[in-house]
Amino acid sequence: MDQEMEIICVGNELLIGKTLNTNAQWLARRATTLGVYVKRIIVVGDYVDEIASTVNEALRRKPRFVITTGGLGPTFDDRTLRGLAKALNRAMTLDETALQMIKKKYEMYVEEGKIEKAELTPPRIKMATLPEGAESLPNSVGTAPGIKIMANETLMVALPGVPNEMEAIFNESVAILLRSRVGRVVFLEDSLYSHRIVESALAPLIDKTMNANPYVYVKSHPKGPNIGIDIHFSTSAKDYENAESRLKNAMAQLADLIKDEGGKVDHQKE
Amino acid sequence: MDQEMEIICVGNELLIGKTLNTNAQWLARRATTLGVYVKRIIVVGDYVDEIASTVNEALRRKPRFVITTGGLGPTFDDRTLRGLAKALNRAMTLDETALQMIKKKYEMYVEEGKIEKAELTPPRIKMATLPEGAESLPNSVGTAPGIKIMANETLMVALPGVPNEMEAIFNESVAILLRSRVGRVVFLEDSLYSHRIVESALAPLIDKTMNANPYVYVKSHPKGPNIGIDIHFSTSAKDYENAESRLKNAMAQLADLIKDEGGKVDHQKE
Repeated sequence: MDQEMEIICVGNELLIGKTLNTNAQWLARRATTLGVYVKRIIVVGDYVDEIASTVNEALRRKPRFVITTGGLGPTFDDRTLRGLAKALNRAMTLDETALQMIKKKYEMYVEEGKIEKAELTPPRIKMATLPEGAESLPNSVGTAPGIKIMANETLMVALPGVPNEMEAIFNESVAILLRSRVGRVVFLEDSLYSHRIVESALAPLIDKTMNANPYVYVKSHPKGPNIGIDIHFSTSAKDYENAESRLKNAMAQLADLIKDEGGKVDHQKE
Repeated sequence: MDQEMEIICVGNELLIGKTLNTNAQWLARRATTLGVYVKRIIVVGDYVDEIASTVNEALRRKPRFVITTGGLGPTFDDRTLRGLAKALNRAMTLDETALQMIKKKYEMYVEEGKIEKAELTPPRIKMATLPEGAESLPNSVGTAPGIKIMANETLMVALPGVPNEMEAIFNESVAILLRSRVGRVVFLEDSLYSHRIVESALAPLIDKTMNANPYVYVKSHPKGPNIGIDIHFSTSAKDYENAESRLKNAMAQLADLIKDEGGKVDHQKE
């Protein structure tokens, strides 16, 4: 469990329930399949002190990785980098590489006729003003670059909140950083769907299966009384064969136990 | 800002990205419209120590309300109540009211022919084993009751993770608890959609509008370069007229500023 990650999502729109946090799910899933263990996801508002204290709390738990989403844009309430700088006690300085990235973007927008002027206004310069020691990560889809910065042993990455920009920077720059630190890991998952057995009767059978298959995580997701239960199996291993056989054994065992109790098991949703 | 809430969502399925956290959005939205200020949303795994430390960290910030979701069911990895008990240093005791609720549910399932036996097996009794001082909240949709418990000045509520059960208990028992503590508050929101103006040019205009309209929160949500920007306005007030006029003034001012800069503003999405 040493490849731990915490995800910090910055944005008032998440706290008032305007926006569904699809970024957290996407990142959690990608990190998990890369062999990273996501330990917490924290959503916090667009305030420097709140961001800084959330980052500090995460760093005190010494995760290997922290990824933030949101708050990198040009508006006054995009405050993630100032929050990071405050947490890490770093100054905010203009980063030439980031500035060039942003300049090229606006020149491209002018060429494409999307905007009239490419001048570096203060809101645009703001996006290139980074905590000291940060490196910018190119944004192939939008304007604000991502950043990476080390805080002691923790690799911190800040990504934009716009989903396709966040995903692009992750895929193009962050996945490789994680892979190089984690090494090769295979994450596998599968599901069974049980019927004619209630969750409270299924509970001891799952317990038995997990005890007999210590590397497989099993979790039941009831959909309501007697509609059927989705049973999710997942495991990580250094190689595919190992992961696959662990998963198969656990699934076969639980399926047998359910049938012994008079339940019905499908591999596919009805 | 004294009506603060923290939401704690318990579940490994959220941390591996299997499940999208729609519960957090639903609760955040409902709480916000009741005049509550959601300050953090934290997702944590199904481990007693993790749940307990997350709850303790939240309580140290002294919010008025903490709501947890998930981990109330009969399976061995439903550990929210044990986590709460550990955080609050309370014993786990069998609650007669909760036990009767659960007993009636299983008797009903037997009558409806959904299951064969209504007997109170250990997994079923587990759902009625609550931290000392907790009161159960009826679950009209599923089996596991919600609970409420005071931790000093903080009202804590634990709800199931199955969305329709969580929503039913909130609507039937929790909303009234919040309303009686918060009093009457009106939350209003509306959106404008701007075109032909980039976010970095919009930024200083939003800044100006928010400075002139201190009770209105304005946030822009770019959908990508030059596709158009969703500008969200929200406010809370003790009466509807006040909230409405605050919102209208801010929207009119920002629309004028955008037009002055050559942008286009719509009240509806194109």
